[in-house]
Amino acid sequence: MWPADTGVQPSAPGARFLAEILEQPAALRRLLGHEEAIVRAARLATERDTRLIRFVGHGSSDNAASFGVYAFGLLPRWTAMRDAITLTVHYDTPLDMTGSTVIGLSQSGRTPDVVEYVVRARAAGALTIAVTNNAASELATSSDVAIPLAAEPEVAVAATKTYVNTLAALALLAAHIGGRGREVSDGIRRASEQLEAVLPSLERAATAMALPFAYTGRMFVIGRGVEFATAREIALKLLETCRVAAEPLTATDLAHGPVAALDPLFPVWAIASRDATLAPVQEAVARARAMGATLVASGTAASELEGAAYALPVPTPSPQLLSPLLSVVPGQLFAWALARARGLDPDAPHGLAKVTLAR
Amino acid sequence: MWPADTGVQPSAPGARFLAEILEQPAALRRLLGHEEAIVRAARLATERDTRLIRFVGHGSSDNAASFGVYAFGLLPRWTAMRDAITLTVHYDTPLDMTGSTVIGLSQSGRTPDVVEYVVRARAAGALTIAVTNNAASELATSSDVAIPLAAEPEVAVAATKTYVNTLAALALLAAHIGGRGREVSDGIRRASEQLEAVLPSLERAATAMALPFAYTGRMFVIGRGVEFATAREIALKLLETCRVAAEPLTATDLAHGPVAALDPLFPVWAIASRDATLAPVQEAVARARAMGATLVASGTAASELEGAAYALPVPTPSPQLLSPLLSVVPGQLFAWALARARGLDPDAPHGLAKVTLAR
Repeated sequence: MWPADTGVQPSAPGARFLAEILEQPAALRRLLGHEEAIVRAARLATERDTRLIRFVGHGSSDNAASFGVYAFGLLPRWTAMRDAITLTVHYDTPLDMTGSTVIGLSQSGRTPDVVEYVVRARAAGALTIAVTNNAASELATSSDVAIPLAAEPEVAVAATKTYVNTLAALALLAAHIGGRGREVSDGIRRASEQLEAVLPSLERAATAMALPFAYTGRMFVIGRGVEFATAREIALKLLETCRVAAEPLTATDLAHGPVAALDPLFPVWAIASRDATLAPVQEAVARARAMGATLVASGTAASELEGAAYALPVPTPSPQLLSPLLSVVPGQLFAWALARARGLDPDAPHGLAKVTLAR
Repeated sequence: MWPADTGVQPSAPGARFLAEILEQPAALRRLLGHEEAIVRAARLATERDTRLIRFVGHGSSDNAASFGVYAFGLLPRWTAMRDAITLTVHYDTPLDMTGSTVIGLSQSGRTPDVVEYVVRARAAGALTIAVTNNAASELATSSDVAIPLAAEPEVAVAATKTYVNTLAALALLAAHIGGRGREVSDGIRRASEQLEAVLPSLERAATAMALPFAYTGRMFVIGRGVEFATAREIALKLLETCRVAAEPLTATDLAHGPVAALDPLFPVWAIASRDATLAPVQEAVARARAMGATLVASGTAASELEGAAYALPVPTPSPQLLSPLLSVVPGQLFAWALARARGLDPDAPHGLAKVTLAR
């Protein structure tokens, strides 16, 4: 789908990136058509008496894993961690994989150390689940079961629809394990409709913000709980497409040192959710404001953050756990608009390839 | 100890920060005088049939936990994770703590959500170990066993000797569990002597680097494996004392997007160790150089990184796992020198207090 209604030509810099951002509601609904693979993975993980979920991935995949830690904690109440790939792959350390389910995350399914970790973990007795946009990839064929992202080809280098579909796949897997599959499946469908309805106004609001930030060199992006993943992903989009030194921080970690770096030319983007993390995020925002930092408020509870120069709220999904499916989108759209304002091409940032083969 | 030999007056900005950096060899030896508490904690963790180590901490304590993941992985081959505090403390999620040993990390022993997490985990059946510089603190008294950092009072807001002593305490705890206590204890003593011998030349080299970086606004600090903790801690020192937007990245994550932001005014500080992570760090450095980034090489294998404009190597300890005890120090000294070059006071950065009570 090309964004004909936006006046952006298919060949213009950033046209693919924007098209893929706007395609996300449809991509989410496609994922729901593959629920049987998720149900099968949930059954295997339960039968294998999983005691620990180990996520492995890099970049946007690792950001999605930050959300996965909460999805598994909140739904089946399972402990989940982003594992240290280096320990297994480079230091060759044999860990006890009894009771472990490994979830390998890679859009391309080709990330070398993720594939190698999964192969080793499976040989050591772990159940291995691949979450990938390429069902024929080495990651998929090396794992016990593969969950297809069903995002269709993603061409822009910076991930968007594969990120949001990874969030949804992890929420759905955790929900099926926790006996709440139908509730979360319905929630994802509704969230896709909420997102579709709000995209045009979000795009206008994000575009209007680009010019004031055209010369911004650095930024903190803060979130907590389920929205820490969103903070990480928005910061990564700004780094890779806009060359802004954007650093993700939890609301609490901001206070443990980094707040000292803030001033009016060092803005803070805060993602607030209507949940138990709202108070700590409000407290962090007040600290940032006291240092004079310009504030961008986003998330479902953007209106609860005082002193914001700019606000990019999103609708509240149900269950609330799904809010990162929506709250990342203002950051994606802002990255697209800011890259254009800076004369950069967000479809193909200098120095990057779509498939990263770095070890 | 005041650094009389450096010509810095005790009342000068940064004098306390520098004094505490220079005190680190002595602080490490003091910790070795408290080995019995570590032996006791190791015995308890073994008796309780630990299957999972859960670290909780913020800021420098959380950075030290990044090292702890490797210390426990490499020595007793136990799985260790930095746990999601928010899941327990804010979302009130009861997780299965069977077989879990919790290690609460806080210099002051007063970090509210770390204390609350430890109290909840202990009530749920976890063994709880406090690692703190205040043996009378709430964290220490709330835990089953407390390991004193024995760093003596740390007055500068930015942590230095408590960070290095936390690394050493975690290495020693992991070593005693893994039956290698004597080897690591001897290694820490030798590392303290290696550090003492190299401090004067490191201080000169770091000071000489301050002026060329006086106007640097942003930086990546990269490391992998045991040195990712060092990358995180050096980035935090630069943020809090020098107001540089310094972001820590693993060597691999640099390639997954952030590399696109680099240019000659966006330098990269790389920490290289003589271990299995050297090749990926060299590969990441080559990518950064291809983008034109100015390179600072540090760590035990600094000389193995090609194209460095500046090098701050440190001696290689034995076992090599202990290299982060040494490799963080050039970053601390550079932060001290750069803060002074910028007219900032690294003893008391604007907006920070020594004890962070943010939730």
